[in-house]
Amino acid sequence: SQYEYVKKFETYQTLLPNTYIVVRIDGKGFTKFTANHNFEKPNDKRGLDLMNKAAESVMETFNEIMLAYGQSDEFSFVFKKDAELYQRRTEKIVSCVVSCFTAAYAMHFSDYFNIKPSFLPMFDARAVCYPDFKNLRDYLNWRQVDCHINNLYNTCFWTMVQKGNMTPQKAQEILKDTLSDRKNEILFNDYGINYAKLEPQFRKGSTLIRVLVLKDKHANKEAEQAESQQKREKCEENQGLNKEGALQQQNEEGEEQKENAEELLKEESDSVMTKGEKKYIAGQKKQKKLNSKQLEKIEKSKYRSKIITLSDDIIQNEFWDKYKDSLKLQE
Amino acid sequence: SQYEYVKKFETYQTLLPNTYIVVRIDGKGFTKFTANHNFEKPNDKRGLDLMNKAAESVMETFNEIMLAYGQSDEFSFVFKKDAELYQRRTEKIVSCVVSCFTAAYAMHFSDYFNIKPSFLPMFDARAVCYPDFKNLRDYLNWRQVDCHINNLYNTCFWTMVQKGNMTPQKAQEILKDTLSDRKNEILFNDYGINYAKLEPQFRKGSTLIRVLVLKDKHANKEAEQAESQQKREKCEENQGLNKEGALQQQNEEGEEQKENAEELLKEESDSVMTKGEKKYIAGQKKQKKLNSKQLEKIEKSKYRSKIITLSDDIIQNEFWDKYKDSLKLQE
Amino acid sequence: SQYEYVKKFETYQTLLPNTYIVVRIDGKGFTKFTANHNFEKPNDKRGLDLMNKAAESVMETFNEIMLAYGQSDEFSFVFKKDAELYQRRTEKIVSCVVSCFTAAYAMHFSDYFNIKPSFLPMFDARAVCYPDFKNLRDYLNWRQVDCHINNLYNTCFWTMVQKGNMTPQKAQEILKDTLSDRKNEILFNDYGINYAKLEPQFRKGSTLIRVLVLKDKHANKEAEQAESQQKREKCEENQGLNKEGALQQQNEEGEEQKENAEELLKEESDSVMTKGEKKYIAGQKKQKKLNSKQLEKIEKSKYRSKIITLSDDIIQNEFWDKYKDSLKLQE
Amino acid sequence: SQYEYVKKFETYQTLLPNTYIVVRIDGKGFTKFTANHNFEKPNDKRGLDLMNKAAESVMETFNEIMLAYGQSDEFSFVFKKDAELYQRRTEKIVSCVVSCFTAAYAMHFSDYFNIKPSFLPMFDARAVCYPDFKNLRDYLNWRQVDCHINNLYNTCFWTMVQKGNMTPQKAQEILKDTLSDRKNEILFNDYGINYAKLEPQFRKGSTLIRVLVLKDKHANKEAEQAESQQKREKCEENQGLNKEGALQQQNEEGEEQKENAEELLKEESDSVMTKGEKKYIAGQKKQKKLNSKQLEKIEKSKYRSKIITLSDDIIQNEFWDKYKDSLKLQE
Ligand SMILES: Nc1nc2c(ncn2[C@H]2C[C@H](O)[C@@H](COP(=O)(O)OP(=O)(O)OP(=O)(O)O)O2)c(=O)[nH]1
Ligand SMILES: Nc1nc2c(ncn2[C@H]2C[C@H](O)[C@@H](COP(=O)(O)OP(=O)(O)OP(=O)(O)O)O2)c(=O)[nH]1
Ligand SMILES: Nc1nc2c(ncn2[C@H]2C[C@H](O)[C@@H](COP(=O)(O)OP(=O)(O)OP(=O)(O)O)O2)c(=O)[nH]1
Ligand SMILES: Nc1nc2c(ncn2[C@H]2C[C@H](O)[C@@H](COP(=O)(O)OP(=O)(O)OP(=O)(O)O)O2)c(=O)[nH]1
Ligand SMILES: O=P(O)(O)OP(=O)(O)OP(=O)(O)O
Ligand SMILES: O=P(O)(O)OP(=O)(O)OP(=O)(O)O
Ligand SMILES: O=P(O)(O)OP(=O)(O)OP(=O)(O)O
Ligand SMILES: O=P(O)(O)OP(=O)(O)OP(=O)(O)O
Ligand SMILES: [Mg+2]
Ligand SMILES: [Mg+2]
Ligand SMILES: [Mg+2]
Ligand SMILES: [Mg+2]
Ligand SMILES: [Mg+2]
Ligand SMILES: [Mg+2]
Ligand SMILES: [Mg+2]
Ligand SMILES: [Mg+2]
Ligand SMILES: [Mg+2]
Ligand SMILES: [Mg+2]
Ligand SMILES: [Mg+2]
Ligand SMILES: [Mg+2]
Repeated sequence: SQYEYVKKFETYQTLLPNTYIVVRIDGKGFTKFTANHNFEKPNDKRGLDLMNKAAESVMETFNEIMLAYGQSDEFSFVFKKDAELYQRRTEKIVSCVVSCFTAAYAMHFSDYFNIKPSFLPMFDARAVCYPDFKNLRDYLNWRQVDCHINNLYNTCFWTMVQKGNMTPQKAQEILKDTLSDRKNEILFNDYGINYAKLEPQFRKGSTLIRVLVLKDKHANKEAEQAESQQKREKCEENQGLNKEGALQQQNEEGEEQKENAEELLKEESDSVMTKGEKKYIAGQKKQKKLNSKQLEKIEKSKYRSKIITLSDDIIQNEFWDKYKDSLKLQE
Repeated sequence: SQYEYVKKFETYQTLLPNTYIVVRIDGKGFTKFTANHNFEKPNDKRGLDLMNKAAESVMETFNEIMLAYGQSDEFSFVFKKDAELYQRRTEKIVSCVVSCFTAAYAMHFSDYFNIKPSFLPMFDARAVCYPDFKNLRDYLNWRQVDCHINNLYNTCFWTMVQKGNMTPQKAQEILKDTLSDRKNEILFNDYGINYAKLEPQFRKGSTLIRVLVLKDKHANKEAEQAESQQKREKCEENQGLNKEGALQQQNEEGEEQKENAEELLKEESDSVMTKGEKKYIAGQKKQKKLNSKQLEKIEKSKYRSKIITLSDDIIQNEFWDKYKDSLKLQE
Repeated sequence: SQYEYVKKFETYQTLLPNTYIVVRIDGKGFTKFTANHNFEKPNDKRGLDLMNKAAESVMETFNEIMLAYGQSDEFSFVFKKDAELYQRRTEKIVSCVVSCFTAAYAMHFSDYFNIKPSFLPMFDARAVCYPDFKNLRDYLNWRQVDCHINNLYNTCFWTMVQKGNMTPQKAQEILKDTLSDRKNEILFNDYGINYAKLEPQFRKGSTLIRVLVLKDKHANKEAEQAESQQKREKCEENQGLNKEGALQQQNEEGEEQKENAEELLKEESDSVMTKGEKKYIAGQKKQKKLNSKQLEKIEKSKYRSKIITLSDDIIQNEFWDKYKDSLKLQE
Repeated sequence: SQYEYVKKFETYQTLLPNTYIVVRIDGKGFTKFTANHNFEKPNDKRGLDLMNKAAESVMETFNEIMLAYGQSDEFSFVFKKDAELYQRRTEKIVSCVVSCFTAAYAMHFSDYFNIKPSFLPMFDARAVCYPDFKNLRDYLNWRQVDCHINNLYNTCFWTMVQKGNMTPQKAQEILKDTLSDRKNEILFNDYGINYAKLEPQFRKGSTLIRVLVLKDKHANKEAEQAESQQKREKCEENQGLNKEGALQQQNEEGEEQKENAEELLKEESDSVMTKGEKKYIAGQKKQKKLNSKQLEKIEKSKYRSKIITLSDDIIQNEFWDKYKDSLKLQE
């Protein structure tokens, strides 16, 4: 029609190819939202678990997200370098990720708080590109250090206020300009709290990654298939544009990682495949000679991709070494 | 910390000042979402009312939105030219609007459908700038013409399938390449349906605007004040950055529009102030001499801003003439 | 080839349609460039004329530029709202305009300074969009006010140093925090200089616009046609993408403005068509009845588009009223 | 002033940190420019040498450019990953590079063609980011393959037309859809031309890099110092914003690369330091124990940075291995 020219006023920016895309969402006005819904101070496990639940929904929907890291009212989603979601259009990626997260947060709120939220939870979002793995690690370090610093401060502050019966002003004054060591001392000496022993989820934040797990041999097959079918559909339905890519990739992962995997069957089901296990499998491979095509078909049905939630230190290399193969983030 | 350099990889784009910002959200994969939840075809009033409800929440949250237009699974939000929300940062505006809309849609879904959604509703969003009022009108025309064309087609199609017992293929074949006139004829001659008499909401889409209304003099004052207070808080809490601007603007509007407004008290309460009414007030103004400061204070308490939902034709000038003063979109 | 994927890393931004595009270029390190080439202080007419010459070359090359304003080491080029140059791609427009300006500045330097430049003149450039005519006027006001303020200060400063034999420090100290009035007084009382009488080019900067002029009837026809042909070619050759648009537009201008223009032939040739003249023509139009098609053909050959350089005040309306028709900037 | 608000309409985009910035300039309408100035077909050495000269000026001006590659009417400039020029603002970098190139091309045109250009040479420019070294190599490969393909075609075509007296149509027809091999055969069998023996500059394009060279011990010291001083100033003057960075970097380079470099003094002056030489120096280092501070001071004065122009194959690793240390492009 004569009006269609207005479409030309739309412009779209894309995110540089061959870079890690990080989408960070952050609760809008959560100082008031948490206060209003009486979140426990400084950490409310229900609230943090709800955040993790919403992040899991996002990862189920967008299969190119390899890792998600959350703390406080924020979550960062890391797409692999060659992600093609919406042809890397910035607004599409940002809006769909935040919309998915918000929907999940809103839908599940009452599961965690037993009430309906008294006003709408809302999140902002942004996309950032990181060209290399070191930049990505430094980004995640930045967020985890932020978690640590805020949480140590808040833990001291609220302990002093709640257990020490100090006024907020007094507590703030004492803590002003103190270093980490001093805060640890205050907690330990004055309140008998060993900070390092507190809930890792509070101290380290939450990290969600995808791993391949063995299906439980004794589990109800039908139930499992139903779950798996359901997930595929959720992905398909929400994903829109790169639906086929999504499914294809899941299959490829399967094929690649599961060669000679029958060795693994001896191990307990549902366990994550770590680097050590992989090495073991690789060793076995040389000793045996199998009809690999035939085997593959059998093996495929024994594994499924699963999102797990950790409270690990992601600054040290240990985490990255352990999950290297699952993450597939480092070339 | 040593990691903070990663913050420099963030860049933010802003939307050109002195242009209308239009944010359009659109349901992701709603072909499947509507099918899955058995939306009535071609229009499900529950679904469309839910969209309107969510749009109203968005307008309550962002007070610089002057008008919203919705049809099918989409909604367009029009910000006034001098909007300052998040300093016009694109990602912030896009993400917060879509997050707010999604939260409301998700939270209220069960109010309209009596079930929980079986998977997450998700919306994409984009922001577009239009430099002048004609461009803006043409944009809205584009959307309403789209509504008309799709709805006429869909109404024919589903009538032929549901009432005419045709196969979808057959119906499609007959409708292929027909003009509007022919479709109207088919409906009228074959099925006795006068398209022009069908639900305006389906034919025209929904338009939400803000108007000033007189408070109901006889209404329960406390209830009203509570409502008003609640709204202010919702706005304040969600709004974040331009909270003060929001409140200030509401007051200014009040002061500006309500001079000599006691004349209006004779009219029925809750009525929208149209152009004619405004003229009348202006006329009265010249005849009287009042202590305006004193009067203002009294008057302020008699009005409140309200969002109304219409199914008007917004292509013709009539709508724009009628609500000119409320919309304040044309310089 | 296997390498072509790298092309996908290119992205291009475009400038919002239906807005005035202003490209401003500014000499890079001209503090040193002017010092090194012994430019007269505070204004070197040779340098400013060279800038104007380069700007004229730019306007000859890009026919959608309606006005250019220059002062000091900068020039602003104003494209009409519906300019389509390079599909409004930002980098293309910015790079080609600055390249054209630089080439002309470098090529003509020796015509004005009788030496080759001892190092390369270099200019940066940017593109800015302005949505409405008021914004555009304010932009140009901003530049002309800047010209005035700097020039008044510099004139005082260098007069005090050069004629008053003050040290730069002394002059700076005296001028610090003085208002315009005081500076005018110093010039007049201490040095007998009436600032308002100084060279308008220095005080007001230079404004280049396109006007239609009558060809000189007595001029050598061949020479004129050659010039005109040469210009068309220059435009064609450099313009690239919108070559056809360029020629078409020049013709349209011709047709539109020249109706009944034989009346104008009585006036002296080469004169600019002002508003008054236009009105006169319009008046004549009603009295006569002519075969307009026939006439047009004759008339076309009598006019040519010409770029003129003015030192007008462009803040007041007078300038804009006078050249309204030539500028075609205001809808 | 009241007009300053217009400055807010400016926005600036920046180029993603930690990526190679490539600025490619390309002659605007050079099909006509080269024809008009009777460039030899298919390659005019004067024209290509002039392009190289202009590129050298660009590299002298912007010291963060590590390599430039040119062919036909285009040149690509590669900035190191951590370049900070104009805080990586896109428009600034693009406009200044193209302006510098154009100025040099315009100023030196008559040195190569003995005439003034009959119209202005003009170049467009764009900036592209490449996240890793492989992407960068592939980019350069893309350009050099383009050079090869076009040059082989053009060499055949013009040989057939000029030596074979064919019509352009005939030549085109014969060459249509031929592969490289066939083109080589035609040249060799029909015209006795061994393509591989033709001017490398035409077949491979030109690559400019910076290398450290020993100063000529016997050279006129004063002349040399003057040249060096002049270059520093040119850089300083044009560079603007990151002037200090520029100088600092040059010094650091010096210090780093010249340790124990007196060994090199035995070699002929002005030679490029290759990998082999570096290794040799490194070996010597372990055998001697010197007062390094003292030595450094002496050594610094023995070297200078120099831009050299090559016609190498830059697709193979050989080039990159040879100049690895000079290029410092690979982490
Ligand atoms: N009590 C409580 N508060 C929390 C918890 N997690 C986050 N918060 C609060 C603490 C902070 O006030 C707020 C997060 O800080 P932000 O910097 O994101 O501020 P806020 O969301 O208010 O503003 P914003 O819209 O993001 O600029 O959320 C929790 O588990 N318990
Ligand atoms: N049955 C029914 N369907 C509706 C209603 N409103 C919208 N829809 C459906 C019709 C279309 O299939 C779909 C909207 O079209 P879109 O072009 O937005 O497609 P969709 O959302 O599937 O894909 P997208 O993710 O936007 O690219 O939603 C309704 O009231 N009833
Ligand atoms: N002597 C003299 N100097 C002039 C004339 N026109 C401009 N200039 C000088 C005065 C200023 O130092 C300089 C223009 O100021 P800018 O703010 O553009 O500074 P500059 O170009 O040095 O730095 P930039 O690279 O633009 O950041 O050029 C002139 O006619 N005569
Ligand atoms: N005779 C001759 N022509 C050359 C030489 N180097 C480049 N050219 C010409 C061949 C091509 O027609 C032209 C470069 O091709 P382009 O694709 O850049 O086309 P052109 O510059 O005309 O258009 P553009 O403004 O870049 O879109 O320059 C040369 O050494 N000798
Ligand atoms: O929101 P803050 O203050 O934690 O910091 P930020 O998220 O970097 O700021 P913004 O939300 O304004 O981008
Ligand atoms: O921007 P897209 O890809 O969503 O495309 P669109 O302009 O919204 O068109 P459609 O109605 O096909 O989504
Ligand atoms: O260059 P200045 O200082 O006159 O001001 P600007 O041109 O707005 O600054 P920049 O050149 O850095 O955009
Ligand atoms: O960006 P453009 O339009 O100049 O296109 P290009 O990629 O440079 O290709 P061409 O060689 O056709 O100019
Ligand atoms: Mg924030
Ligand atoms: Mg927050
Ligand atoms: Mg936060
Ligand atoms: Mg869409
Ligand atoms: Mg949709
Ligand atoms: Mg839709
Ligand atoms: Mg500047
Ligand atoms: Mg300057
Ligand atoms: Mg300047
Ligand atoms: Mg090109
Ligand atoms: Mg070219
Ligand atoms: Mg080219």
